[in-house]
Amino acid sequence: MTTLRLPGLADPHVHVRGLGQRHKEDFASCTRAALAGGFTTILAMPNTKPAIVAEPALREYQAEARVEAHCDYGFHLGATEDNAGEVARLAPLSTGLKLYLDPTFGDLKLQKLTALVEHAATFPKHVPILAHAEEHSLASAMLVAHLAGRPIHICHVSRKVEIELVARAKDKGFDVTCEVCPHHLFLDEHGHGLPAGFCEVRPVIGTKEDVRALWQNLDAIDCFATDHAPHTRAEKSSDKPPPGFPGLETALPLFLTAVHEGKLTIADVEARMALNVRRIFSLPVQDDTYIEIDPDEAHVFEAARGESRAGWNPFEGVPLRGRVLRVVLRGKEAYAGGRIVGAPGDGRDVRGGTP
Amino acid sequence: MTTLRLPGLADPHVHVRGLGQRHKEDFASCTRAALAGGFTTILAMPNTKPAIVAEPALREYQAEARVEAHCDYGFHLGATEDNAGEVARLAPLSTGLKLYLDPTFGDLKLQKLTALVEHAATFPKHVPILAHAEEHSLASAMLVAHLAGRPIHICHVSRKVEIELVARAKDKGFDVTCEVCPHHLFLDEHGHGLPAGFCEVRPVIGTKEDVRALWQNLDAIDCFATDHAPHTRAEKSSDKPPPGFPGLETALPLFLTAVHEGKLTIADVEARMALNVRRIFSLPVQDDTYIEIDPDEAHVFEAARGESRAGWNPFEGVPLRGRVLRVVLRGKEAYAGGRIVGAPGDGRDVRGGTP
Repeated sequence: MTTLRLPGLADPHVHVRGLGQRHKEDFASCTRAALAGGFTTILAMPNTKPAIVAEPALREYQAEARVEAHCDYGFHLGATEDNAGEVARLAPLSTGLKLYLDPTFGDLKLQKLTALVEHAATFPKHVPILAHAEEHSLASAMLVAHLAGRPIHICHVSRKVEIELVARAKDKGFDVTCEVCPHHLFLDEHGHGLPAGFCEVRPVIGTKEDVRALWQNLDAIDCFATDHAPHTRAEKSSDKPPPGFPGLETALPLFLTAVHEGKLTIADVEARMALNVRRIFSLPVQDDTYIEIDPDEAHVFEAARGESRAGWNPFEGVPLRGRVLRVVLRGKEAYAGGRIVGAPGDGRDVRGGTP
Repeated sequence: MTTLRLPGLADPHVHVRGLGQRHKEDFASCTRAALAGGFTTILAMPNTKPAIVAEPALREYQAEARVEAHCDYGFHLGATEDNAGEVARLAPLSTGLKLYLDPTFGDLKLQKLTALVEHAATFPKHVPILAHAEEHSLASAMLVAHLAGRPIHICHVSRKVEIELVARAKDKGFDVTCEVCPHHLFLDEHGHGLPAGFCEVRPVIGTKEDVRALWQNLDAIDCFATDHAPHTRAEKSSDKPPPGFPGLETALPLFLTAVHEGKLTIADVEARMALNVRRIFSLPVQDDTYIEIDPDEAHVFEAARGESRAGWNPFEGVPLRGRVLRVVLRGKEAYAGGRIVGAPGDGRDVRGGTP
């Protein structure tokens, strides 16, 4: 058996849920799933109940995470049409400001161009803004950030036209970074095999041509982000299935399988699942945080035995190669032998939390 | 009485109608209205019936214009999701390619970012693309054109956030030009005094803050365009009033009134209603085409006595200062003493028409 050591993985895009949505996931179950997937830091999205758009909600989630989290975490703030001042003030406690320019789960949608322009101008330039921005919104977000002279991180790029535009913007010197999700790289609209409801995700699963374009533009992809978005089986089977897939436990095995197949190198994975994420979001240096993996072991993920409360996974039954053996978080063993060995509360806020 | 001589005005944005919509306006009535308003060249928009999205329709309108037009004219082509090759081929016969990225009169709406990207890449770079692009679409259009390394002309900019974004893009060296309409400079949502239906126009009439921002960013405005969009009184009074105002006969008097009030100089008007339009759209040099105006004469426009078939005007009853006395088109008197003195067919296609 080969054992490889990699830096602890960092996921810039995780829907932890918690508080009003603990039945879907909470900080304990989510960070356990993260460790099982090789992640030692997760950055939490703000479209929660309540949404993280002002200090009181941020404090509530911080308190929950402080006692529950098994791995390190950060909070992205959520932009609304009128909270530019508030989120700018809270920026030092956050890992970024999320702008929802297109519809998805939750109600944090920004309608007006003015809101984008105002946040781009007001939020501190050294803290990233992240955009759920598809099609024209993506182009708009890149333009506004560029004209404001500030960096922008485009979330879950999924279409050919989008990744090509991001690549071209990078070539022109735009300060733009982007992430792509496993489900947009490994599933396509005709081949996903998921039942109605379960296949709902935003952005939607792409065409074969979209998937091919993402792989062809690997150089333009800074991060692999899971967009881990747990919903229960009951919710996904309902008349109004919420969009989103769990992803923390299957992301690394999927990418290691791609390495096994010669589509990626280990260095590609390390860059996009650790180094680039840490750089873009200014995560603390943690030399004593690392993971050990077997890059070859053949296995199949069983959601029923997983850590996420979702209880299902779009990649169940898919033959995988490569898995996590051991996770060390700031010098302390956190996961080993297929089990969480650390304790709730071991995880720390990468920004230190509210004093 | 003072008499000033100016170059013949050129309007980059005119809905001539004709063919299937002659009851609204045709090349004869529209070019008569143009001459009465001091315009010697009008550029016709393609969202007609049929729309100008392929060669056969272009030829039909060319034939109609050839026998009817009293002043010079050009044709903007219309972009569809799948005609990039066709319009690129027709580019030499056109003055530009119009992209409708937001809803308005007609059905030429482009939904997908791919269509914008494809047209921006395919249409010859020396012929402008023009965009009806509001809010995020405007930002998207500027980005896509910039990344394609080609010029873009933004039609009828109407909002504060939009003109400020255009101004910032120009400061950053983007190859972008724009036009603003009289109704967005002289009317606001609370002060237009127009009945329901009659006040419908796209983009909508702005707020006082929008209007103020347009005037404050005069340096960023390359052209004053009428967006002359005639509909009959009956249509505007109907349950489904189509958006659009006639504007050819009142634009110059409105701007001369602004000169009279010290808000503009004659040079500002000459640049935005003649010189810049001719430069942006590569219109032929015509030293023997000019207009003579009285910049001070007080009058009130009466639509019933006007040339446009619309028969109404949003600026009826408004006290105006300054009017057209005489128009000379390529050495020949075309308008004098309040009357059209040229003949239908005097007007020429600025691109020469289809051989």
